[in-house]
Amino acid sequence: MNYYSTEISNLIEQLSRLPGIGGKSAQRLAFHIIDMPMEQVEQLAGTIQSARKNVKYCKSCYTLTDKEICPICMSANRDHSTIMVVEDTRDLAAYERTGRFDGVYHVLHGALDPAMGKGPEDIKLKELLVRLQTENVEELIIATNSDVPGEATAMYISKLVKPSGIKVSRIASGVPIGGELECIDEVTLLRALEGRVYL
Amino acid sequence: MNYYSTEISNLIEQLSRLPGIGGKSAQRLAFHIIDMPMEQVEQLAGTIQSARKNVKYCKSCYTLTDKEICPICMSANRDHSTIMVVEDTRDLAAYERTGRFDGVYHVLHGALDPAMGKGPEDIKLKELLVRLQTENVEELIIATNSDVPGEATAMYISKLVKPSGIKVSRIASGVPIGGELECIDEVTLLRALEGRVYL
Repeated sequence: MNYYSTEISNLIEQLSRLPGIGGKSAQRLAFHIIDMPMEQVEQLAGTIQSARKNVKYCKSCYTLTDKEICPICMSANRDHSTIMVVEDTRDLAAYERTGRFDGVYHVLHGALDPAMGKGPEDIKLKELLVRLQTENVEELIIATNSDVPGEATAMYISKLVKPSGIKVSRIASGVPIGGELECIDEVTLLRALEGRVYL
Repeated sequence: MNYYSTEISNLIEQLSRLPGIGGKSAQRLAFHIIDMPMEQVEQLAGTIQSARKNVKYCKSCYTLTDKEICPICMSANRDHSTIMVVEDTRDLAAYERTGRFDGVYHVLHGALDPAMGKGPEDIKLKELLVRLQTENVEELIIATNSDVPGEATAMYISKLVKPSGIKVSRIASGVPIGGELECIDEVTLLRALEGRVYL
């Protein structure tokens, strides 16, 4: 039985396909949208279409951008000899928010995950190797996630790149600032111990 | 600093204005949308616009619908002498899902809430009174929420309608089925005691 009219049901159905939006949130969103001023709805729909149409990969670092080359890769104020490798554009944004990294990035769009059938050709790894050959790179900082695929990817890239003489580093694992020890898993606690810094 | 390109930032900003979608979810949604096949994005945007354009109030019960009169009000299989009063279309859908109510509805679009400046003229109350005068109504079942505004609205409608001789009832309050007593607040426990049914 269709409790709502077709238009509302369609909207709820479309919204509930989005990640992290369950049936209840989709309903709430749908009724909110129906209640929004028409021009705001037009704007929302237009922005969705326009972002999908105009966003593409930066031809240098493969982050998502609406330019051919993203602003970070274009910037003369960035240190182009240091490349930080991240899994996706959100990770790039997370480091940009720190405001303390002045190198450039390379976005892999994923991590190696054999269990999920994700191999080296499924991420932007070949593109990274081309950059290392053609650009004047001194250090590669691997900032993939600290989960199994992220660690595997870090190891893989490290083994691949080290012979070329480029410095390869991995961001530190440990207890997050503000983290309470009793809430932190054992693997992280051991990593924090191994990576302890002498004061 | 704009870590993302304008198109992505705009999309994140628009999405994060929706209810229940914080900054992180808006980012996740935005990147998901950018990754969706173009025709799915067109469909999503189209459905949003079309729902906003075509959904209106049923001229009889004021539920949201894309018809002049909603399917429930049009149905000859429903008992039009019993009206259930609900706060919004989602509450109507909740009762429709039970499949056991064969009357019709009246959707108030809110509840009386003087603290928030919501008075009788801000909900579809006048419209309900017109229906009671012009339709052949035998019972009014008040199914507003069990919170303060919902209870106040129930009391208000009850006092207004009772003198006319129409039966007025309120859905029962009590312990939800499957609810564990120790997790239930005292007011509900007292209500459940007062409303006990002799076996």
